[in-house]
Amino acid sequence: MHTFASAHAETQLENLISYIHEQYPHIPVILDAKRGDIGSTATHYAMEAFERYQADAITVNPYMGFDSIEPYLAYADKGVFVLCRTSNPGGSDIQFLEVQDEKTQKFIPLYAKVAQMASQQWNANGQIGLVVGATFPEEISRVRTIVGKMPLLIPGIGAQGGDIPATVQAGKGENLLINSSRAILYASSDTNFASEARRVAIETRNSIREAVKVYLG
Amino acid sequence: MHTFASAHAETQLENLISYIHEQYPHIPVILDAKRGDIGSTATHYAMEAFERYQADAITVNPYMGFDSIEPYLAYADKGVFVLCRTSNPGGSDIQFLEVQDEKTQKFIPLYAKVAQMASQQWNANGQIGLVVGATFPEEISRVRTIVGKMPLLIPGIGAQGGDIPATVQAGKGENLLINSSRAILYASSDTNFASEARRVAIETRNSIREAVKVYLG
Repeated sequence: MHTFASAHAETQLENLISYIHEQYPHIPVILDAKRGDIGSTATHYAMEAFERYQADAITVNPYMGFDSIEPYLAYADKGVFVLCRTSNPGGSDIQFLEVQDEKTQKFIPLYAKVAQMASQQWNANGQIGLVVGATFPEEISRVRTIVGKMPLLIPGIGAQGGDIPATVQAGKGENLLINSSRAILYASSDTNFASEARRVAIETRNSIREAVKVYLG
Repeated sequence: MHTFASAHAETQLENLISYIHEQYPHIPVILDAKRGDIGSTATHYAMEAFERYQADAITVNPYMGFDSIEPYLAYADKGVFVLCRTSNPGGSDIQFLEVQDEKTQKFIPLYAKVAQMASQQWNANGQIGLVVGATFPEEISRVRTIVGKMPLLIPGIGAQGGDIPATVQAGKGENLLINSSRAILYASSDTNFASEARRVAIETRNSIREAVKVYLG
């Protein structure tokens, strides 16, 4: 969230989310805040996201463990997307380290272990989803196999070049939130920004719909 | 940072940090923001921390890898403390997973691997430090062995119960920033807040000085 341009950026964000909820009540608002802090701070971050901003879901970082995620889950009607496999260049530095799977004794990458913990240990009320980048369809497929039908938030199409049909196939065509940010936000820096952003957003949506249609046959 | 109580919380924080720099120029200000996001967002978070707030250092989360940390290092006179071993109850969930050390082929906990990467791969200009909780002195000792004289930011004394002499010994008595937050912030909720907070802060400082004196003999 780039909220420092103005001292009133928080108020602007409140107003924007409120507008979306009023005009488009079927569209969930996900705060991509990537929070990760101790329980007492997380409790306040959860208040900020869900009470102040009235967001429907938030993204969180798993490095500090379950008690840094639990306060968000106290809001029973809200969603929590845990960072699992991120699509940035350094995403592999930590997430690709091999750790042992207790059941099979085999080694699996850390992101797969996070998918296991999130789906098997942390998700008592079905509020958790995972962030898995679109730049690695084979990894989306691996996560999908671990987590069953859990929702996956998938950034990395658009500016980051992820392939929509490959993403849809890897995610088995359902419970996917495929996200394009910069390709739409920066569609034009000219006076035609609104129409260009709209055009790119609609194109992206149509590509996703087409890919789902093809996948589901 | 609990900055949502007022729409002007950012301005208050700017003023507070500015006041500290004016009155106590020898005291570094560390923003415990625990940021962790892709490079383009990290660039803006770095601007927020170092240009807007004029902080001297920031804490960051390593889960997204080096390119999520690099933009902060572009500010050559600023410090970056990478979360390594955190003192919260769930800190072990992820940080204690065993990963392979390429050199020795032995397995080491993830936090030790993060200490290796931060000190041997990421710290080209000597700007990096690590966050290692005081509740686990034997782990501070392990990290100190890996990273040499790198600065360690050590939360967990005070409210979280970490032992000051054990912490100082484990950290070898130097390049330690031992932090107490809640024990001072919540020293009193009464009208004597200022004097109580001052008393606890001075007591804590004296305990640290005494422990360093004893350790260094």
